[in-house]
Amino acid sequence: MPEARRKRRSRRNREDKPTSAPVAPAYITRNIPLYEVLDEAGLEQIEANAERILEEIGIEFRDDPEALEMWKAAGAEVKGERVRFPRGLCRKLIQDSAPAQFTQCARNPERNLEVGGKHTILVPAYGSPFIRNLDEGRRYATIADFENFVKLAYQSPHIHHSGGTVCEPVDLPVNKRHFDMLYAHMRYSDKAYMGSVTAPERAQDTVDMGKILFGDDYIDPATGEPRTITTSLINANSPMTFDATMLGALKVYARNNQACIVSPFILAGAMSPVTVAGTCAQALAEALAGLAFSQLVRPGAPVIFGTFAASISMQSGAPTFGTPEPALVLYVMAALSRRLGLPFRSGGGFCGGKIPDAQSAYEAANSLLPALYAGVNFMLHTAGWLEGGLVMSYEKFVMDCDQAGMMAVFAKGVDMSENGQAMDAIADVGPGNHYLGCDHTQANFREAFYRSPLNDNNSFEQWELDGALDHVQRANTYYKKQLSEYEAPAIDPAVDEALRAYIGQRKASFPDSNIS
Amino acid sequence: MPEARRKRRSRRNREDKPTSAPVAPAYITRNIPLYEVLDEAGLEQIEANAERILEEIGIEFRDDPEALEMWKAAGAEVKGERVRFPRGLCRKLIQDSAPAQFTQCARNPERNLEVGGKHTILVPAYGSPFIRNLDEGRRYATIADFENFVKLAYQSPHIHHSGGTVCEPVDLPVNKRHFDMLYAHMRYSDKAYMGSVTAPERAQDTVDMGKILFGDDYIDPATGEPRTITTSLINANSPMTFDATMLGALKVYARNNQACIVSPFILAGAMSPVTVAGTCAQALAEALAGLAFSQLVRPGAPVIFGTFAASISMQSGAPTFGTPEPALVLYVMAALSRRLGLPFRSGGGFCGGKIPDAQSAYEAANSLLPALYAGVNFMLHTAGWLEGGLVMSYEKFVMDCDQAGMMAVFAKGVDMSENGQAMDAIADVGPGNHYLGCDHTQANFREAFYRSPLNDNNSFEQWELDGALDHVQRANTYYKKQLSEYEAPAIDPAVDEALRAYIGQRKASFPDSNIS
Repeated sequence: MPEARRKRRSRRNREDKPTSAPVAPAYITRNIPLYEVLDEAGLEQIEANAERILEEIGIEFRDDPEALEMWKAAGAEVKGERVRFPRGLCRKLIQDSAPAQFTQCARNPERNLEVGGKHTILVPAYGSPFIRNLDEGRRYATIADFENFVKLAYQSPHIHHSGGTVCEPVDLPVNKRHFDMLYAHMRYSDKAYMGSVTAPERAQDTVDMGKILFGDDYIDPATGEPRTITTSLINANSPMTFDATMLGALKVYARNNQACIVSPFILAGAMSPVTVAGTCAQALAEALAGLAFSQLVRPGAPVIFGTFAASISMQSGAPTFGTPEPALVLYVMAALSRRLGLPFRSGGGFCGGKIPDAQSAYEAANSLLPALYAGVNFMLHTAGWLEGGLVMSYEKFVMDCDQAGMMAVFAKGVDMSENGQAMDAIADVGPGNHYLGCDHTQANFREAFYRSPLNDNNSFEQWELDGALDHVQRANTYYKKQLSEYEAPAIDPAVDEALRAYIGQRKASFPDSNIS
Repeated sequence: MPEARRKRRSRRNREDKPTSAPVAPAYITRNIPLYEVLDEAGLEQIEANAERILEEIGIEFRDDPEALEMWKAAGAEVKGERVRFPRGLCRKLIQDSAPAQFTQCARNPERNLEVGGKHTILVPAYGSPFIRNLDEGRRYATIADFENFVKLAYQSPHIHHSGGTVCEPVDLPVNKRHFDMLYAHMRYSDKAYMGSVTAPERAQDTVDMGKILFGDDYIDPATGEPRTITTSLINANSPMTFDATMLGALKVYARNNQACIVSPFILAGAMSPVTVAGTCAQALAEALAGLAFSQLVRPGAPVIFGTFAASISMQSGAPTFGTPEPALVLYVMAALSRRLGLPFRSGGGFCGGKIPDAQSAYEAANSLLPALYAGVNFMLHTAGWLEGGLVMSYEKFVMDCDQAGMMAVFAKGVDMSENGQAMDAIADVGPGNHYLGCDHTQANFREAFYRSPLNDNNSFEQWELDGALDHVQRANTYYKKQLSEYEAPAIDPAVDEALRAYIGQRKASFPDSNIS
């Protein structure tokens, strides 16, 4: 950015900014109660059902003899690849050693994250092979898109984490794109990030690049152990199966004290029963087995109890989002996670809509609010999700970030301070008058209400004069302006050089492949 | 409808309908817990603040000497038009006689509504001078639009009430349009309806037409008293003022045992303090005064504690919706209403968007879900609301009805029956397989998941083949199909004739006026 322009910008910022502008916190700490939908007896019944699944049906750990040996040694019954667990074994393994809350460190320590408890961390969407924007429509994602989403997440005060595979850079070889994705998170953001899970050696690359990025800070001097600097997503293959790829990545991360989210990924009706209670029992059983396994690998390894549950359309077979049944599943699973004593991952701005229209917005809001009220700690897929996760949308990304900002305000709850109670204002104004000019309004209006950068709150006539734009058109302008104003966080040039050297050496050490 | 076509339709209906299709209940009975945001101490503080407002500042009852006399007789201090209330007086008047729950009768007794307790009644939006649809854009509403919205509400299984001024028929004289609005509700629907509040004599017309419609059923033989057949909306002029028009209508309704919603109508920042706690204290004080007044008029008159609270944009002065602050107000007011012991009205599909785009959908969902979770009993404005209430949207009406259907499913909570737990299905399917064909899925899939008539859940490719329609375009097709298939409920021709005769005589008895 030219010096003159930068100066102009910063002067304007100074003038425009409300004097008492709060610094955005690194994450949300909820000051609101939790919402639950199921009573104690119901939750106990689902826990009992999960234990029955673990004991009588069991979980398959496929293509990983080491895992089977570990389960045998822990007291489980292993037949072929099927592991059956004595009642309570998984729960005990977890509760004996897994932390209820942990810190995920970011390279900027002001952005360190407390995972668990009353904290909610909002994280971009993950895993889409396509992107969409108003100008280009829908097309395959590239590393340039990936970098753009890292930048947009870095710029949003409402997104607390840089995410993982914010989109699939399909222009890069499958077996090497993790290097470029990790580098983008490390270089274009200073927020915490997620690691690669598509092969154990890519998990190891994640760990090794993290060591370079964090340098001396990688080891916590208080414990002599590695700090937790990545959180990675380990999906179960529902129903009741873990595969070698995911288990391999989990083992690498757990052994290095890096966090894993163990998430049953469930489209109810296909990968679990069509009922809420049945889906919850199965998902709990799957999560218990995977989470307990992490504690066999390394007692005390940080883990997050995850749930991804959507319904499927019984007409088309496609997943559906924002409907009531997955919201019920989310609330039940969050309660079960609390009873187990682990941080919980779920939710996000889910939708099945193909474009960021009213369908997608209703669906996203119907997914985001329950996630907030349920007390989700790690809200993957908060922003950008479109078309059942096949598409990362530029416009929806900033639209969802705006929703994230509103969620943070709601999570603060009601200000019951004297200023919040405003009794003097009510007495000053009196019956039949208005509050627009009163001292209390003047003192508070800048911070009183959430201000959306996207919503149109003008008169109809002004909206027409402004071009009668819809929400997507405004979002299109907004995200482009954001990207045009992006400035990368500073990084030690030596660290940057070392990261590039590592990537160069590793990439040269084996041939490109698009097989997997 | 020609006989042949009717036969064809009913045969098709029989064949298409799932065999176990449930009959839509007349209203929602919630089987989910309530959500609250403020603790006991906070709620008590707001109650104390409201009592201080009532005692020290007081409420104005304007241009109604009778009301002032009644308050004097009840023990309040009256100076000019300002009424100050001894601490606890309003609360005691309400709790001594106002019913915690009451029945609003519909002319079809299967559609009678239980107002209060665990019940939620979803009601169309109210009061817009404009309509919008994709074909015509935005224009003034007419009585033909009014009739269309009555028909659409009648056809929706998710809307439980015909509403009131579903839009303003501005093609009719202001002082006579209530006749045509009431007739439309009575003739084109058999759901319960709301009455006119724009003048005491129009309230009396509402009562008198109701007597004709209900005939012998108007008086409950068990009590000898009129049944409650209308619910009407009495807004306070915030801050802290009631006017003669609203008080006059309230008196007519209360004296005839008809229900009133007493609602502070608040745009926070203009008509109340910019803070949540300040807004809640003022709104509680206003509601207490109005509700207590109804009990002075007729002890035991059915009343609903209402709240309408939006924020205003401090840039444009326009109301904003779907933001976090009004949601907090809603939750607090619902809790205060429960503590008082009255049915509660709030919520709806609010939005400030000018068209039914993503902004409007996010905002509507952010208003509807809190209303459901807060335990709102009478959810005015559930469907159709657009542009801060200035516009009734055809497309958004059916979009919001779809959301209403999802809310009803969520409100059922988790099915913990043996079938709901689905343990046999989990055992049958086993690890690594799928549930699509299993017996449990086959037996349950028709009812398992909410089926939206509007959302597109097809593949991207199919969606493109279908014309790449957005949500509004699909809603446009859907509402027109609904209207084309509308069939009016039967009515006794003598009753219809008597209603028309009453309207004709009354209309002829005074000249048209558009003054008010």
